[in-house]
Amino acid sequence: MESVREKAIKAKKASLLISNSDSNIKNKALTEMAKVLDKERKKILDANKIDIESGKKLLDLGGITSSILKRLEVNDNKIDEMIKGIQDVAKLTDPVGKTLNSIELDNGLELYQIATPIGVIGMVFESRPDVVPQIISLALKSGNSVLLKGGKESINTNKAIFEILVDSIDNNSIPKDAFQLLEKREDVSEMLKLDKFIDLIIPRGSNEFVRFVQSNTKIPVLGHADGICHAYVDKIYDEKKAIEVCFDAKVQYPAVCNAIETLLVHKESADKFLPIIGKKYKDANVKIRCCEKSYEILKHLEVSKASELDWSTEYNDLIISIKIVDSIEDAVNHINNYGSHHTDTILTEDKAAAEYFLRYVDSSSVMLNASTRFADGFRYGKGAEVGISTGKIHARGPTGMEGLLIYKYLLLGKGQIVADYVGRNAKEYSHKKLNTTFEEALKKF
Amino acid sequence: MESVREKAIKAKKASLLISNSDSNIKNKALTEMAKVLDKERKKILDANKIDIESGKKLLDLGGITSSILKRLEVNDNKIDEMIKGIQDVAKLTDPVGKTLNSIELDNGLELYQIATPIGVIGMVFESRPDVVPQIISLALKSGNSVLLKGGKESINTNKAIFEILVDSIDNNSIPKDAFQLLEKREDVSEMLKLDKFIDLIIPRGSNEFVRFVQSNTKIPVLGHADGICHAYVDKIYDEKKAIEVCFDAKVQYPAVCNAIETLLVHKESADKFLPIIGKKYKDANVKIRCCEKSYEILKHLEVSKASELDWSTEYNDLIISIKIVDSIEDAVNHINNYGSHHTDTILTEDKAAAEYFLRYVDSSSVMLNASTRFADGFRYGKGAEVGISTGKIHARGPTGMEGLLIYKYLLLGKGQIVADYVGRNAKEYSHKKLNTTFEEALKKF
Repeated sequence: MESVREKAIKAKKASLLISNSDSNIKNKALTEMAKVLDKERKKILDANKIDIESGKKLLDLGGITSSILKRLEVNDNKIDEMIKGIQDVAKLTDPVGKTLNSIELDNGLELYQIATPIGVIGMVFESRPDVVPQIISLALKSGNSVLLKGGKESINTNKAIFEILVDSIDNNSIPKDAFQLLEKREDVSEMLKLDKFIDLIIPRGSNEFVRFVQSNTKIPVLGHADGICHAYVDKIYDEKKAIEVCFDAKVQYPAVCNAIETLLVHKESADKFLPIIGKKYKDANVKIRCCEKSYEILKHLEVSKASELDWSTEYNDLIISIKIVDSIEDAVNHINNYGSHHTDTILTEDKAAAEYFLRYVDSSSVMLNASTRFADGFRYGKGAEVGISTGKIHARGPTGMEGLLIYKYLLLGKGQIVADYVGRNAKEYSHKKLNTTFEEALKKF
Repeated sequence: MESVREKAIKAKKASLLISNSDSNIKNKALTEMAKVLDKERKKILDANKIDIESGKKLLDLGGITSSILKRLEVNDNKIDEMIKGIQDVAKLTDPVGKTLNSIELDNGLELYQIATPIGVIGMVFESRPDVVPQIISLALKSGNSVLLKGGKESINTNKAIFEILVDSIDNNSIPKDAFQLLEKREDVSEMLKLDKFIDLIIPRGSNEFVRFVQSNTKIPVLGHADGICHAYVDKIYDEKKAIEVCFDAKVQYPAVCNAIETLLVHKESADKFLPIIGKKYKDANVKIRCCEKSYEILKHLEVSKASELDWSTEYNDLIISIKIVDSIEDAVNHINNYGSHHTDTILTEDKAAAEYFLRYVDSSSVMLNASTRFADGFRYGKGAEVGISTGKIHARGPTGMEGLLIYKYLLLGKGQIVADYVGRNAKEYSHKKLNTTFEEALKKF
């Protein structure tokens, strides 16, 4: 069996070819993938059955949770979504080769900045087999190679989907080597050492796992850590909006990173707002952990008291911590100190408060009168999501195909040398903005 | 004395203030800095004298090289350049807050992507005191905090410049805490641990140092490693251009990363081209290391033979390795295998060859008939340079202020919740491109 290193070398080699693949050829390959996935449903469902059987045994032994088991399951509906996802990626504009900027350095010396794929992406994800078609299609469209490692619980399903997709590729037009599946847990540690061949690691998993990756590789990491999100109800707020948003942000799907963990309420709004939202949470079985002041208001609902640790805890569950703050400044400070710079929302009808919150909350998504649950690649109109980055480098927040792209500079000259531009009688740079693309410049050659 | 951690915490706190500083206030502060630097020349020159004295002693003991000593020196000319540099940064357009993209998710639910500073930058650089005003001005203009650590050889000069600049700031308009100077060597290791407060490390130094930084921190690193650059002379080439460019790229300033280390020549061009460029190199005291085939052509010039190691060595000196290749494909393969993905140039009059080279060489700058020495932030029209990145994440190649920026998403709603957009009767997202900026949207509040 091939080592991870051998696979990475193959992927690296293929990355130069796929980086220059024609848009039509890439789209044709994607359309074919969608078709074959439809035709080979049985193979996927059969493989998934094996994983589900093993999963059930693991569940009985306490090895996995029922929510992991649930995410593992693939049915015809989910295959339909996978097919739709690939078709959507085929429809996205091909970003590769686009001229981002062009400038004349001097007469006849032209600089073009063009979008390029990053190269080789290492993707490690949890047991959701739908990540396989999503990432393969995004990598193909953006001209990147990818090494994929999924959760061991879905190994048979992942492998079936991977093989169906990659087997459908005509190797003469797209290099199959661009797509590599890793199967063993040790393969991840091995992969993290291959900074010579892998350009970016994208881990999608628990916080502990993302931190482990960050601490054990020289390769840049694009990953999200915690999702400690907040809703803040200001002094002047609209009750209907505030109740709906605070409820949706916690209850609509509590297991995800863009659900809120803490509700902050201005002291002048607390007496009126907290009993209403508290009751609504209680009716939805949300456990409530209160600061000293809010405890006094909500103790009739059998709430408990929050500890310092609660302010920096991602529950991912039907639990919420509540804190009363003296001012919007206090709210913003709390969010910047305890939050994870992911997504936070303010409920206010006061323009100055809204602007202050939007400017000073240091998170990748900051919202006004909207649910934090909107922070998502699909909802943000990206077509498909690579991940949600809580880092502040390269890509921030919900990240689509743009996270897999970088650029290169192409300088077209006629024999110019730097010596002519230094010292006495130095020529001067014109630095004149051009409106031509690299393609147009090539034609004039 | 304050610990690095205390300084980083102060810088982090200040970063939220400076990130929202008004353009006019930032530009006024920069203009003041330029003025004060002019007024306090003597303080800088006196401090520099002390560093030069210690440097001379170190040189005698073999502790530093004469080129380091030379780079250490500050004179009135260099102070003029520093002043000019700060004034240039003041003239740059303020990128902060610019709306990069706006899209309607649904009627009354608008998403704005706006440019923001990264936050806190950790900058470690060699003994060139002119980096201090360059980085302080770039950080200020881009709204970032910065922790600076320069080489110990220039500690007095760096400190003098730092204090003059930071003392000139009116703390009521710009938080002085945004700028922190580190002085001890141990401070660097300490800084690398502070991933809670520092968002990006930019090391400017030797390859070994950059790799040390990458291996010892969870903080993202924007740094360049080697500069192993190539010139390739193709089958069809213009002799005058090829000779001038290959000479300039090696000889004009050999100690820098964008000078070439290896000259590749097509086998059909070697017999004619190599004796001419070989003679020119020889006359300029360039030592030549040849592959087997080029050795046969150039042995009359007392050249030596290259070893395998030469192809991946950055000489940073008047040394060049020369290799004859069978085809342009071989040249590109050699560059992608042995090079450092920095800057490479082709000398050709053949359009197809030019396009192949420009597309398939995987470097941050790829050039046609131009000297690799042009790869530089100032020459590329960026006004000032943060560094030259050989990484492929965030920023690639010569990097100006854009390397210190990221973005945040602002979602402006009217109480919308995600529950309305899922399941049966789900509302649909419009994902309609908007042409309004965030500033305009705020006005409509």
